[in-house]
Amino acid sequence: MVSLSQVPTPRAASDRAVAEDLDRSDQLAVYRERFVSPDPTLVYLDGNSLGRLPVTTAQRVAEAVTEQWGSGLIRSWEQWIDMAQSIGDEIAAGVLEADPGEVVLSDSTTVNLYKLAAAALDARPDRHVLLTDDDNFPTDSYVFQGLTAARGLELRVIETDLDAGLSTEAVQAAMDEDVALASFSHVAYRSGAIADMVAITGIAHDSGALTLWDLSHSGGSIPVPLRSAGADLAVGCTYKYLCGGPGAPAYLYVRKDRQGELRQPIWGWFGQQDQFAMTGQYDAAPGLARFLVGTPPVLSMIGVREGVAIVAEAGIGALRTKGQALTSYLIDLADEWLTPLGFRLASPRDVERRGSHVTLHHPQAWQICRALIERYDVVPDFRAPDRLRLGPAPLTTSYADVWEGLDRLRRLVESGVHESYPAQRSRVT
Amino acid sequence: MVSLSQVPTPRAASDRAVAEDLDRSDQLAVYRERFVSPDPTLVYLDGNSLGRLPVTTAQRVAEAVTEQWGSGLIRSWEQWIDMAQSIGDEIAAGVLEADPGEVVLSDSTTVNLYKLAAAALDARPDRHVLLTDDDNFPTDSYVFQGLTAARGLELRVIETDLDAGLSTEAVQAAMDEDVALASFSHVAYRSGAIADMVAITGIAHDSGALTLWDLSHSGGSIPVPLRSAGADLAVGCTYKYLCGGPGAPAYLYVRKDRQGELRQPIWGWFGQQDQFAMTGQYDAAPGLARFLVGTPPVLSMIGVREGVAIVAEAGIGALRTKGQALTSYLIDLADEWLTPLGFRLASPRDVERRGSHVTLHHPQAWQICRALIERYDVVPDFRAPDRLRLGPAPLTTSYADVWEGLDRLRRLVESGVHESYPAQRSRVT
Repeated sequence: MVSLSQVPTPRAASDRAVAEDLDRSDQLAVYRERFVSPDPTLVYLDGNSLGRLPVTTAQRVAEAVTEQWGSGLIRSWEQWIDMAQSIGDEIAAGVLEADPGEVVLSDSTTVNLYKLAAAALDARPDRHVLLTDDDNFPTDSYVFQGLTAARGLELRVIETDLDAGLSTEAVQAAMDEDVALASFSHVAYRSGAIADMVAITGIAHDSGALTLWDLSHSGGSIPVPLRSAGADLAVGCTYKYLCGGPGAPAYLYVRKDRQGELRQPIWGWFGQQDQFAMTGQYDAAPGLARFLVGTPPVLSMIGVREGVAIVAEAGIGALRTKGQALTSYLIDLADEWLTPLGFRLASPRDVERRGSHVTLHHPQAWQICRALIERYDVVPDFRAPDRLRLGPAPLTTSYADVWEGLDRLRRLVESGVHESYPAQRSRVT
Repeated sequence: MVSLSQVPTPRAASDRAVAEDLDRSDQLAVYRERFVSPDPTLVYLDGNSLGRLPVTTAQRVAEAVTEQWGSGLIRSWEQWIDMAQSIGDEIAAGVLEADPGEVVLSDSTTVNLYKLAAAALDARPDRHVLLTDDDNFPTDSYVFQGLTAARGLELRVIETDLDAGLSTEAVQAAMDEDVALASFSHVAYRSGAIADMVAITGIAHDSGALTLWDLSHSGGSIPVPLRSAGADLAVGCTYKYLCGGPGAPAYLYVRKDRQGELRQPIWGWFGQQDQFAMTGQYDAAPGLARFLVGTPPVLSMIGVREGVAIVAEAGIGALRTKGQALTSYLIDLADEWLTPLGFRLASPRDVERRGSHVTLHHPQAWQICRALIERYDVVPDFRAPDRLRLGPAPLTTSYADVWEGLDRLRRLVESGVHESYPAQRSRVT
């Protein structure tokens, strides 16, 4: 799968012609034209926070507004009512390793984490531990704190090397038969480290625990082996690598044979067996629909379909290959240009353990981040306290973008312009 | 407040010239031009299910897509991050009787019901009853069934005359000091009957219970006296009278002095005190933000601002006056034309007890509803088992629309064309 032949030697990396050569032989280069890119000087290295706008999405949203809502009015629910399921099936087929009827769009990632974690805890009433790690995304951790506090359960938190990511051995050491649910991020939001979904799910299952994976930083950029792992539950974000638009609804996955046994706690009319009978008694729908709750935000769902279609067309295998090459190239440049300036790699150096973003430590990461955005037209991301996160999303980023971004970063730090920025935290997600 | 002088005598109602006279003297008639209305023959009597599209919304959504998302990318979160609160404040000021910092956009109505009902039950741990009625919207009832089942509490359900709506006396009779939370719809979704928010909240408070109001069918069409009532909690829908667009995010209200004492169960990063510090420990934000959860669907929020602005400009007082006149006129026509055809009023006849929609019983309501939509270009709503719901939203409906809609309904039933439709349930919300 992995073609490292594209990765140049460190010696050559700093020559811009290398980037141009790589772009010429990039099979995915054509996909960059499928996205809006109005500012040619911008280097966008934050596609892992908010993916770019597909060219077709503006038109599709406009049609949904003027034709479906404006003209069709309430009658358009005939088109909208199954959209959460049909887009879910498209994600299952084109983005994840999952079957039809196992993935559905619903709510936010956080609400989905709550629903699925609660369902799992309720399904293992004789166990009292929810296992996670300290490298999980904050909202995951908050949800788990709330659920365990309300139920008098134990939240067991594995301490992780935040640059290396979660190790399978650490999960093995923390697992026992008290664990009802083990929940981790597939790709760590700080470092981009990949957790071994197959091995970790196996460890959980050997102890009789259920698993809940957060795919927000993996879905759409690397293979997600839900089926191979036999993973029970997952949630994921559509506004990062899936380019669904700001705050677009999240997706959730429940393995087919778990759907009947699990009940989520927010009983609403979209999870009801016969929704429009409007009967008094709640009867959970038999399949995945029981994990739905209320009326979905239609206009925010439209973009998800467009983004997912492009990701599926490009293919996860090709995206993974390019993602590995792009991040390897980025690390080569960082080694040559940035290490001498006080940067240090905060991601796995092993390409097999690294997702599609690369993070660097620098004591002035916050000031550098602000100065890069405001003075050098490069958009990275800051992660407290000292991390600069660079996300060259493989669908929309060229090798020349990476060269240009790192060259500007190098020049910025050499110039010392960031020293004039006050030290403070970002409000940007 | 109420001007009944506009309501014609029953004798005159069936003369179309009466409707035209009423439209000429309608102060709100100008607002109809603020909405897209591409099909001049359509009579839309379902603005209480999905409000019409404001002319400005298409442009605002397009800007959000191409400029904010497409060009601004992640940097646009500076504009988006406080939108839930600022639109909430606009709803508080222009739609409800509430103060800044008491209303915020978040999630779906159902998820908000769950969060606020759970918070209320947790705040009254020495009480074991959640009180509601059998005329509440199904999703409200389902949420309450789920919450009380999970906590081993009693769900006490008042039996209501579904045409007359919830009586204050029935609430008084069902209330006692076991009740932790009393939750009702302000306007009943079937009949349009108004519950007496001030009196019922007073009864609950006299027993030490908290109140949670569902404003989905009242907010944007009649005054909502949250402050006068001292109401504790409320949720509401933005895609009906507020014309925010299909599935647009709901709002929630928490009385200022209750915010500190209440905790909702879904702990997420948008409810965290210092969201972007991304610390490991969840600390609920001090004010209303603690009732937020995850990343909001930005594109679906844009329309809410536009719809709310028009409602606020028209004014709830004027909308209430026109709503009373429109529904009274509709009932006059129904008395004259439809009662002889087997229809029977399923809404309060007393204009003071009636919201902005009118419902009629007919044994073939389902078939009539389908035939009206498909053959007569009139869009009403069906409510099982035998109700035809007519929602002449005061902001976008003319008296001539009401005349035309009821005339077509009369002609349809006289023709018997609906007899050829099979009896079955609607999938349309």
